[in-house]
Amino acid sequence: MRFVVGVMGPAKARKKDIENARMLGELIARREWVVLTGGRDVGVMDAASQGAKRVPRSLTVGILPSGRERISKYVDLAIITEMGSARNNINVMSSHVVVACGLTGSGTVSEVALALKAGKPVILVGATPVEEKFFKKLGGKLLAAVESPEEAINLIMKQFEQQQPESVQGARSWGGV
Amino acid sequence: MRFVVGVMGPAKARKKDIENARMLGELIARREWVVLTGGRDVGVMDAASQGAKRVPRSLTVGILPSGRERISKYVDLAIITEMGSARNNINVMSSHVVVACGLTGSGTVSEVALALKAGKPVILVGATPVEEKFFKKLGGKLLAAVESPEEAINLIMKQFEQQQPESVQGARSWGGV
Amino acid sequence: MRFVVGVMGPAKARKKDIENARMLGELIARREWVVLTGGRDVGVMDAASQGAKRVPRSLTVGILPSGRERISKYVDLAIITEMGSARNNINVMSSHVVVACGLTGSGTVSEVALALKAGKPVILVGATPVEEKFFKKLGGKLLAAVESPEEAINLIMKQFEQQQPESVQGARSWGGV
Amino acid sequence: MRFVVGVMGPAKARKKDIENARMLGELIARREWVVLTGGRDVGVMDAASQGAKRVPRSLTVGILPSGRERISKYVDLAIITEMGSARNNINVMSSHVVVACGLTGSGTVSEVALALKAGKPVILVGATPVEEKFFKKLGGKLLAAVESPEEAINLIMKQFEQQQPESVQGARSWGGV
Repeated sequence: MRFVVGVMGPAKARKKDIENARMLGELIARREWVVLTGGRDVGVMDAASQGAKRVPRSLTVGILPSGRERISKYVDLAIITEMGSARNNINVMSSHVVVACGLTGSGTVSEVALALKAGKPVILVGATPVEEKFFKKLGGKLLAAVESPEEAINLIMKQFEQQQPESVQGARSWGGV
Repeated sequence: MRFVVGVMGPAKARKKDIENARMLGELIARREWVVLTGGRDVGVMDAASQGAKRVPRSLTVGILPSGRERISKYVDLAIITEMGSARNNINVMSSHVVVACGLTGSGTVSEVALALKAGKPVILVGATPVEEKFFKKLGGKLLAAVESPEEAINLIMKQFEQQQPESVQGARSWGGV
Repeated sequence: MRFVVGVMGPAKARKKDIENARMLGELIARREWVVLTGGRDVGVMDAASQGAKRVPRSLTVGILPSGRERISKYVDLAIITEMGSARNNINVMSSHVVVACGLTGSGTVSEVALALKAGKPVILVGATPVEEKFFKKLGGKLLAAVESPEEAINLIMKQFEQQQPESVQGARSWGGV
Repeated sequence: MRFVVGVMGPAKARKKDIENARMLGELIARREWVVLTGGRDVGVMDAASQGAKRVPRSLTVGILPSGRERISKYVDLAIITEMGSARNNINVMSSHVVVACGLTGSGTVSEVALALKAGKPVILVGATPVEEKFFKKLGGKLLAAVESPEEAINLIMKQFEQQQPESVQGARSWGGV
């Protein structure tokens, strides 16, 4: 089974979040991990998949709200859920780690909350102080906040490098990192 | 079609949130509105349904994550979704207004975010300054923050009293209130 | 908790199926049970709710695929799932018994199959010999086939009359009837 | 975007259905198509993924009901839906073509029905006369019935060979084949 990193973020994203997502996608793919996104052709979703496809033999998965949306051309495998925003729970349940690039959208906020609910480790990249404070209180040791894609990748490597993903389940804190 | 108020809040709730939820349930039921909750026999869900059932001929609906959970004995109608936390999106999609009593749980945070995503009006009861700041930025005019159940009910009445619920859809801001 | 009978059937239904559904809705409501349908304003869904609303203080619940469909005016409580045909599983999971009026639609066939999968008792009203043969083989003792709404109601009464619905779960065969 | 063939069938399958599924998985993978299944480590799901993994660089996707099930060791990418049997709709929505090996299980029957509902082309491999008659009536030109995996693959190739999968949507009949 492949190791999956979910990259979440707004459809209408800030330039910095787009750049972070593209770099994250590329760095994830270089590690031969799968990039999982919301699959649409906009914002952070599109950028993360685009970054991954710069790497030969990378694999990008898009979990689409329905069959009516335009699918990012950088998505290799499209999962059509037909369940609207409820698909956000599938995004996080199917990721070993969730990385959020920008919290300016309600959908992304719901994904971070659902990830914490499910005991998934979450990394916020470039969060504001209020966002970080809010989610640190909610997530405790499941939540880490960093400034750059490189830091996010290092955090994941330290935590997961000696472990094979036998399951997508299971709470895992950033506490020991 | 009946007018539905969703009361959301943590399973492990603070005493104050429980009291607010019970009072909210009662006040909603007195207006002959339907009380919708997550349906389990714990925390804010249970308390809101309990409050409603003090009122004769009240109707309480519980949207359960699965058939394995214990159902609140104050729930008249149990909807078994079998979709875990993704049922949070059904909770908000099926409510004309969402009221959150306490934001100490990830599930409730996801519900507020999903409600805003869907353009549903949301009222936070007894939120902390950080919580209010975080969600005001995210929700803009869709979000109101009050201190008491009575204020929440007054807000809903002002906004909806001259309108029949022909649909559960449609964004509606608290702006004109 | 209220006892819930799900009435399923095609949106484009035969006249006989519509009539059966309307009568079923009325008979279910007279027993003070809840009528649960797919909630749209067409076919068997609409007719079952219409029949129920002939009875004072009846309760009709519609489980809608999304917020975009027209809701039957005979539905008291609309649950908006935003999950398309996957809502068919919620229809059956939330019903203590599933009654199918007409199997000419793929959606209804999926509901009967999902009900059997979940161990729910199913009654087919007016099925053809091929339909009955197909589903008898699949469902065994969970499946009963009758000719009229009255027979369906009698079957449910015999089976459930001495039992309070403490749960929506649990397989129950028609074997002992 | 990759072309996806969903292979559906019972968890408790007949020996012949298991063999067909394994061969189907291998033949699909040889065409460089993606094999999509329900992802568990039993029956047709497991066999189809196993067959595919005989082919170097094949890709197998499993759409799991929840994170509690054992995942087939032949699944490369696990999508954890947490929505029980409602995930059956995702299975068919995410497949360009659905192939059913054995209709002895209610879950598989629901998948064929949901596929037809969504306008997806379906191939039954080794169906009994009653099963074929039942589904032909329901599915019309969307439904084909064959005896062997090879015939199923030939049918898909004839139909799709001159077309790129720009979308997972869209009804397509076997009529012109």
